Order: sequence, then structure tokens, then C-alpha cells
Amino acid sequence: MQFACTLADAAGAEILPLFKQPLAVDNKLEGAKFDPVTEADRNAEIAMRKLINQHYPQHGILGEEHGHQKTSNGLTWVLDPIDGTRAFVCGLPTWGTLISLYDGGKVLVGIMDQPFTGERFIACSNESRYICRGVEQIARVRDCADLSHATMMSSAPEMFSAKEFSVHQKLVEQIKLMRYGADCYAYCMLANGFADLVVEAGLSPYDIQALIPIVENAGGVVTDWHGGTATQGGQVCAAANRVLHEQALAVLSQAAKKSETIL
Amino acid sequence: MQFACTLADAAGAEILPLFKQPLAVDNKLEGAKFDPVTEADRNAEIAMRKLINQHYPQHGILGEEHGHQKTSNGLTWVLDPIDGTRAFVCGLPTWGTLISLYDGGKVLVGIMDQPFTGERFIACSNESRYICRGVEQIARVRDCADLSHATMMSSAPEMFSAKEFSVHQKLVEQIKLMRYGADCYAYCMLANGFADLVVEAGLSPYDIQALIPIVENAGGVVTDWHGGTATQGGQVCAAANRVLHEQALAVLSQAAKKSETIL
Repeated sequence: MQFACTLADAAGAEILPLFKQPLAVDNKLEGAKFDPVTEADRNAEIAMRKLINQHYPQHGILGEEHGHQKTSNGLTWVLDPIDGTRAFVCGLPTWGTLISLYDGGKVLVGIMDQPFTGERFIACSNESRYICRGVEQIARVRDCADLSHATMMSSAPEMFSAKEFSVHQKLVEQIKLMRYGADCYAYCMLANGFADLVVEAGLSPYDIQALIPIVENAGGVVTDWHGGTATQGGQVCAAANRVLHEQALAVLSQAAKKSETIL
Repeated sequence: MQFACTLADAAGAEILPLFKQPLAVDNKLEGAKFDPVTEADRNAEIAMRKLINQHYPQHGILGEEHGHQKTSNGLTWVLDPIDGTRAFVCGLPTWGTLISLYDGGKVLVGIMDQPFTGERFIACSNESRYICRGVEQIARVRDCADLSHATMMSSAPEMFSAKEFSVHQKLVEQIKLMRYGADCYAYCMLANGFADLVVEAGLSPYDIQALIPIVENAGGVVTDWHGGTATQGGQVCAAANRVLHEQALAVLSQAAKKSETIL
């Protein structure tokens, strides 16, 4: 965890000076999809890879920008320097640096770091912690036992396929408040007791792995829309408790599709 | 402007200790609509009203929480202690305190204050300024001459009527990136050159007045969907420049409805 925090510090040092600066934006995917990648994203991943290769050369690395370096001891660092690149290029402080250590089955360490607001969420051993500018507290989900009282978050409507979105909308009809635009910050708000559901789709492993133990150690549940592991990304449903999670899955499973195994 | 900043400081002192705390949430409107009002909202408005009545007893006050105190000299303070109460109760830092001084035709002073991130946007005389934790810079819109390159923001899909939303969606099809969930922060990102359009509906005067000079002094345009004044709220279209504004209004005017005059 200490080393993971060093990685987060190194990423933040690269990213923060470029946040809210006019940036050239690349399109990684050709065609209609808009997927900005910033210089900050690339530089932060390089900085983290360098530190990992220095200190743990036997560890694998899966990063958004620079691909997959295979592990020789079963452990892989899964990195997303800027989760929420769209928020980032819009100047919005809901993006975060995601760092996790994955053993091929379980996420052992998870960090979400937001250097502009000075917030860090960490999952270690059996608890999740929220650190805001030096003040540390334990993160716990709140009580919400029914969909009709739930606040739900998703990054954006366009992250869903048409079929996924129609199912998502069925869930929206049953909840109290829907909030778009929170990116990885949404899962942390769930872990901190300010949201009850996060439902997303089209995620990569590096978009979700760090967030799984942050939510689970805070008392929440994270699976895919099938009830299976969320470590491979795809369709993800995070809930503040098991009852709410079951209620959400009963709706979402109509569009369920098993996630592919990437690592 | 100095007094307006004193008001923002007073509001922030009331609000900040209650942000990210578990709060009791009221429903102001009966029925399906969810409109949380926090203790912070009420206390901050009381603090600002007290200061105004002490220093400028002849000024009017229009606030979200405590109604309309008529002006005796033509000037009215228009206050929204927490614009983006939904973001606030979700723990998201995109809400802001909005303060403006209105002379019945023009907004003379505008402030958006975000005490958690330590950001303040102010419009005074002919310029807009962005102050982040003591560092001050001039806010300017960016260049974007065509809808197909534009980033657009709106608080939430449910702020629109069904007719308004179908028109909004026509605009979404023509732009590059749609971003929900930024509340008043969206207009400030437009003023700072990180967004090109903000399109909203169902606004009250206190939801928009402070933001008008912030956007206009930064080089942008703010009107209703009809091209008329946005000071009364309702359907609002803010754009980074006149060309983009015209392109957006050509679509939006299909659902145009004149705003009612409230003050």
C-alpha cells in the first residue's frame, strides 16, 4: 500500500500541472467515438511504470496507455492514470488516478487519487479509508434497503449500448435520483455513503479494479450485471448492500452478457 | 464586488462544514420531483441576508430558500447558496454558491464560489476572473466555431420536459461531446475555455443570473432558447461565441418558449 501511494504521488505530480490547461486531445479510436488521451495520462503512466520496474521488476503491468507487460510472479499492477479523461479535458474534478494490484483472481490493493481536490481513497487489508488533505477517516456505505430510495450514478448515457441503455433506463424509473458524470468518483461516493448504486458498461479492467476493494471493504458489493466478478470490466453494478444489489441485478440481468477475461 | 465576496465567504463558512456529512434531506416539492434542500443551504442564505440587511437595507433580496424581499432602490441581490443541491447531497464538488446583483435589466455583479475545491469565479466591470486558492487569472472562452467540434454540458436529462429533451437530443447528435452533471460549474468551465455550450431548462433566476456576466465577460453569449434575456431563467443557452450560439439556437428554437418575468 505504501508503494501504491508512492505511485499515486508520482502520477499526481505529472497530471496536476496539466489539469485545467489547454491541451491537445488525441482520438485513440477512429470514427465517431470520442476518447481523449492527454499528455498527462501518458506521462503519469510512464512515471508509474518506471517506479514499478525499478522496485518490482517481476510484477506485471496493465495500463491504459502502454499496454500489457506480463507478470512473472502472478502479480500485476493495473493502472489508469486518468480515469475520466472526458471530465479531465472538461476541467471537471471528478476524474481520478486508479491503481490496483491484482493476483489473477483478487484485487489486493486499490487506490483512487484525486490530486486537484486533494482526496485519496485507499483499500487495504479489510477496510477502506478516505483521506482528504491529511484528514483520514474510515469509509463506510450508507443504509439503503430499497431501489425506490436509491441514488444511482453512471458516467454517461453513451457508455451503454442501445440494449444496455434501455435496461438502464428501466432501473432509472425505479430509483429516486440519477446522477451522470461522476466517473470513478462515483464508486468512491458509494463507498463514503453518498450514493447507493453505480451502474456502468463498456469498462476495461483498469477502469474498475482499484474501485472494487474500495467499495467492498466499505461494505458494498461489486459484480458484473450477471453477478460474476467485475475484475475484467465490461458491465458493472456496484451497490451499497446485498439487498439493493439483488434488486438492481434483477433488472440489469435482462441485458446481461458475460465479461471477457482479459488478464 | 468586495461586499459580494464577503457574502460568498459567509456562505462558504456555513456550507463547507456540512459538505460530505450525512444530511437529512427535505423534499420541497411534493410528488415525484426530488429537490433536496440542506441545512447548509438555509443557513448560508440566512447569513447572506443578514449581511445585506446590515450593510444595504434598501437592497432587495431574491433567494431560493427564503423568498423575495422587494428592493426600494432598484437593486436586488439574487442568491442561490447551493446551486446543485443534488451534487451536494451526492458528495460531488460541482455545486457552487451563486451571488449576483441585479438592477432590473442587467446583472451588475456575479460570483460562483466553490469552497471545497477553493475556486471562485467573479465577473466585475468588463472581465471575468478565475481565482483558485489565491492564484488569480483572467477567464476567457476558447475558440470553437462549429457544433461538430463542441463540448456541451447540461446538469441532468430530467431538467428538460419531454419536448425540450427531444430538441436537446437533436443538438447532442450534432456535437462532439455531451457531459451531464456539472451544474453551475459547467458555465464556469465554458468561461474558462473547457466547454463550448451549456444548454439547460427549468432554471430560476437565482440559478443563472450570477453566471451570465461570468460567461459574457469571458467572451461568451448567454440567452434563453429564443435569443432573449436569460436573467429570468427558464430555458438557457450559453455559448463560447456568437457563431456557435446561433447554430445552437437554430436547433433549440424548435422548442422555444418565452421565459416568464419573475423580478
